[in-house]
Amino acid sequence: MEVKILKNINESNDNYAKQNREYFKKNNMFTINVMGSPGAGKTAFIETILSKNDNKFKYAVIEGDLSTTNDSERIAKYNVPAIQINTLEASSVCHLNASMVNRCLNQEDVSGADVLIVENVGNLVCPASYSLGEDINVVVLSVTEGEDKPVKYPKIFNVADVVIINKVDLAKHLDTNMTEIKENIKKVSPNATVIEFSNRSKIGVDEWITLLDSRIKDKRK
Amino acid sequence: MEVKILKNINESNDNYAKQNREYFKKNNMFTINVMGSPGAGKTAFIETILSKNDNKFKYAVIEGDLSTTNDSERIAKYNVPAIQINTLEASSVCHLNASMVNRCLNQEDVSGADVLIVENVGNLVCPASYSLGEDINVVVLSVTEGEDKPVKYPKIFNVADVVIINKVDLAKHLDTNMTEIKENIKKVSPNATVIEFSNRSKIGVDEWITLLDSRIKDKRK
Repeated sequence: MEVKILKNINESNDNYAKQNREYFKKNNMFTINVMGSPGAGKTAFIETILSKNDNKFKYAVIEGDLSTTNDSERIAKYNVPAIQINTLEASSVCHLNASMVNRCLNQEDVSGADVLIVENVGNLVCPASYSLGEDINVVVLSVTEGEDKPVKYPKIFNVADVVIINKVDLAKHLDTNMTEIKENIKKVSPNATVIEFSNRSKIGVDEWITLLDSRIKDKRK
Repeated sequence: MEVKILKNINESNDNYAKQNREYFKKNNMFTINVMGSPGAGKTAFIETILSKNDNKFKYAVIEGDLSTTNDSERIAKYNVPAIQINTLEASSVCHLNASMVNRCLNQEDVSGADVLIVENVGNLVCPASYSLGEDINVVVLSVTEGEDKPVKYPKIFNVADVVIINKVDLAKHLDTNMTEIKENIKKVSPNATVIEFSNRSKIGVDEWITLLDSRIKDKRK
């Protein structure tokens, strides 16, 4: 009984994800699903990207959170349209699903964007199971979380196209072993691109921009 | 249909939680459900408690994780029985439920304990909805996660009896505003006891020990 229902939920999500993917293709929109633990620095990562845009792309952002509009308010400061989804008021709490994203797509602000960034609910477990129709999955992992997180939360790293090792400027205050983090990422996500990043000192920003340009170019081929 | 199933799942969990609660009462066992984000320092918090035990209590620990036995291996070094539950192989992935804990209770190592610590899956969302029959809920929040997490993840702070603000020795390297964290905790969890904590410099350990002694004494009255 339970299994059947779960299968139905996943099938329904996959249908919406497919619709979203078709929409993104038709509208020439590149979509990034940003996932990670609470406080990993997902919003700050998005802010850094937006601040370095130089009018190259027209961005839109969908912000997922249980509660508050804190994150969409942070994004709005960059003159980028930001839609907040509060999952405490929605059908599922612990992750965004493709249907929630689908409902945002026809809003005027989103429909004109070249790049859509979706910030998922801060959760290193559940979002891994729900495709939103995205072009790439980005997992943000803070150095403060410890070296073993990739092997302890393998599902989300399995689906990652890019892993942002964030707050690397804090590593010197911790006993963090950067080599061990990277080895653990490689174990569960051998093909992911790994970028050391810092919102404060802007480490990794150029590497991210190069990667994004290349992925968008590939899609438009 | 979905609602009915979810109701059944919660009813079934509540039944197991009730059984666990009766078991804890009968066996004079005090049980602590430790929750928090991945990398908040839950295992380190438990290690610090165990290292300061001075043979006062007989502890047992149940470790919940999607994958790996890393945490139970860390606990075993303190000569404390540690049972690992890997949720990737269990019926639910993103949280422990009362049935999983129930299955551990009749194991010899656990049955003789005065204090049972259950470390939940690293997740600031889902564990809030599943009582394990515990005496107190402890939420570990790292200062590196940012000031707004209590209001962004209100469900888990709503059920917290104690909030451990962890890694306070790192606050000086961040822009963390400790007053704002505490105000945000108070908004969603006005009755929780808040303890500033550091596993490294042992800040807050005495405060925790006093609190635990007092709660155990209250229960045994």
